Amino acid sequence: MATVPLLRDDQLSPEAAEVFAEIRALRGSDYVNDFWRAMAHDPAGMRALWDRLRVVMGPGTLDPLVKEMIYVAVSTANGCGYCIHSHTAAAKAKGMTAEQHAELLAVIGMAMQTNGLVQGLGVEVDELFKA
Amino acid sequence: MATVPLLRDDQLSPEAAEVFAEIRALRGSDYVNDFWRAMAHDPAGMRALWDRLRVVMGPGTLDPLVKEMIYVAVSTANGCGYCIHSHTAAAKAKGMTAEQHAELLAVIGMAMQTNGLVQGLGVEVDELFKA
Amino acid sequence: MATVPLLRDDQLSPEAAEVFAEIRALRGSDYVNDFWRAMAHDPAGMRALWDRLRVVMGPGTLDPLVKEMIYVAVSTANGCGYCIHSHTAAAKAKGMTAEQHAELLAVIGMAMQTNGLVQGLGVEVDELFKA
Amino acid sequence: MATVPLLRDDQLSPEAAEVFAEIRALRGSDYVNDFWRAMAHDPAGMRALWDRLRVVMGPGTLDPLVKEMIYVAVSTANGCGYCIHSHTAAAKAKGMTAEQHAELLAVIGMAMQTNGLVQGLGVEVDELFKA
Amino acid sequence: MATVPLLRDDQLSPEAAEVFAEIRALRGSDYVNDFWRAMAHDPAGMRALWDRLRVVMGPGTLDPLVKEMIYVAVSTANGCGYCIHSHTAAAKAKGMTAEQHAELLAVIGMAMQTNGLVQGLGVEVDELFKA
Amino acid sequence: MATVPLLRDDQLSPEAAEVFAEIRALRGSDYVNDFWRAMAHDPAGMRALWDRLRVVMGPGTLDPLVKEMIYVAVSTANGCGYCIHSHTAAAKAKGMTAEQHAELLAVIGMAMQTNGLVQGLGVEVDELFKA
Repeated sequence: MATVPLLRDDQLSPEAAEVFAEIRALRGSDYVNDFWRAMAHDPAGMRALWDRLRVVMGPGTLDPLVKEMIYVAVSTANGCGYCIHSHTAAAKAKGMTAEQHAELLAVIGMAMQTNGLVQGLGVEVDELFKA
Repeated sequence: MATVPLLRDDQLSPEAAEVFAEIRALRGSDYVNDFWRAMAHDPAGMRALWDRLRVVMGPGTLDPLVKEMIYVAVSTANGCGYCIHSHTAAAKAKGMTAEQHAELLAVIGMAMQTNGLVQGLGVEVDELFKA
Repeated sequence: MATVPLLRDDQLSPEAAEVFAEIRALRGSDYVNDFWRAMAHDPAGMRALWDRLRVVMGPGTLDPLVKEMIYVAVSTANGCGYCIHSHTAAAKAKGMTAEQHAELLAVIGMAMQTNGLVQGLGVEVDELFKA
Repeated sequence: MATVPLLRDDQLSPEAAEVFAEIRALRGSDYVNDFWRAMAHDPAGMRALWDRLRVVMGPGTLDPLVKEMIYVAVSTANGCGYCIHSHTAAAKAKGMTAEQHAELLAVIGMAMQTNGLVQGLGVEVDELFKA
Repeated sequence: MATVPLLRDDQLSPEAAEVFAEIRALRGSDYVNDFWRAMAHDPAGMRALWDRLRVVMGPGTLDPLVKEMIYVAVSTANGCGYCIHSHTAAAKAKGMTAEQHAELLAVIGMAMQTNGLVQGLGVEVDELFKA
Repeated sequence: MATVPLLRDDQLSPEAAEVFAEIRALRGSDYVNDFWRAMAHDPAGMRALWDRLRVVMGPGTLDPLVKEMIYVAVSTANGCGYCIHSHTAAAKAKGMTAEQHAELLAVIGMAMQTNGLVQGLGVEVDELFKA
């Protein structure tokens, strides 16, 4: 199920094939997940996304595992099942333990709960919290 | 603006006053933010929330700062302005630098973008990603 | 703040004025809230909405107060501050007590929390739950 | 999977059957999609929805294809997989090319990204943008 | 499909097994749904959730069926398919009729629609609606 | 109100100042809206966003006005007030009439409504709609 056909390797444009090669090289795996096979219909958009993704998710002041957990948090709040699964898998590949996964989910659940309470109560932001 | 009046200290039930005292003690500050002044209309619910919140956000296998950033991520995806402001302030109080804040936001933005792309493409979860 | 000017009574088209008169008659109050003053730029859409709203929110197999609480629940999950405030006010006008309001919010918070946990865990629907 | 049984043609109430006939006539196809087979449990609600849908999605100052793309955009942000698939199919039936589809998704992704950045930054609306 | 393996009864920790026993006792059924089999990886979180859930969803000033419908409303706005299915089933088990279900969905749809209109119009909360 | 201070022109880094100059040149206006003054804390992220934004929102197979309306639609579903206001203003600047604005909102409202109905009914995607 998808709104576009998933492209096989032999159906890729040269530009898309180049991104696929970079994905394989960076990940050290031949497997390219289906999101990219769908994105490959827009080679320029795929290139822009891939280039930015490497920068944003790459080394910086935040740990790459922390970044994956933040990604899972956003995807969970947005209800994107694919993104939850793929980035939970990525977090595990980067060392997330079962205990850390459980804590991640507990924090997400707690945030969802207070998001609802705060919105339902309609509380305005305290002056103290403004930068 | 709120859907309930914000309670002043002299309007609190004994049970709510007890939670306020614990909040002040834990934070080492006399300031109690308006969310709790709204929650105080439901002393039992406030007690349950406060007790659970301390556990979930307290020490564990994830760093407390990381937990605050996950909280901000969920709150941002849910568009809860109050929660974004209060937990960004909490993250800064726990040491989040301007660089880390910028990276947090960049990851959130990237996740939001791919959440949209994946959902719009309607891609099903790869077998590989299932636990 | 709005993306369209709020229309005063003397700026209404005849069709919009007719809806305003019906709103005033049904509510037994001269006050027409700002949502309708914004909607009045689209008299036909306003008429369709008002006619349907009266049916959906009117007497049926669910109590009108229950309907207002469901409305608040949806609006809270969607983070629509205006809708939360206006329908909480409507629920209070229909008799919602402070205790019921607190329970409503507790259920919303609980649902938000488990929504996050379930999505993060990626659990598929049990066969038993399918109609 | 559904929370109500999908109704076959021989299970429809006369009022629901009438709407089915109009759907078939307007679309020039015998196929009635499963959403309507679920909605048919509420013939009056189905009638109201169908009547309004034809007006809103019909000819106006916006092109019908543009309307379908707006529909896809909303459905994507809300993560409604069914709606994304059905309205992407409708957009294709109304002439959306692969290039337009890719651009639609790119705009959706961009909007999702800046929605997250703006909310996370907590920026207030510039005076200039208020009507 | 899940991001953690679903635990069978013989894989539960003693603390998780205790919660399972309580779920079975309260529901008068041997069936424990898959959400709990996923949650069982975090026995302490599961215990906290179960204890709070019984209080929030139990007897109070709101009818238990009303609480289930509010739960469905939140879950629908958040697009949590599992939650929608499980709490619709729970509502039916507590006596929700087909007519009530149709009215619940109609109110949800109406709230979603006006949430969109209000947000798109950017209307500020009327002073009258503030507590 | 923001989670970071809004930067004045004299506080910009050279890289951020360069983006501001490009924004002014492209828009033919000295006014730079507050989102960019907040983003300027992350000059590299701001540059990446600005470069991509110009491509995505620029000329292509979709009309720039249509792109702005899609942007408004996503922002409305996500409840991003700032984005709704800024892109509604941008759409008006690109020629969106009051009638088109009303139709845009009507389609958004309709999509929100059926998103809720479809999710609440839990209907699976028809085979026919899969690419």
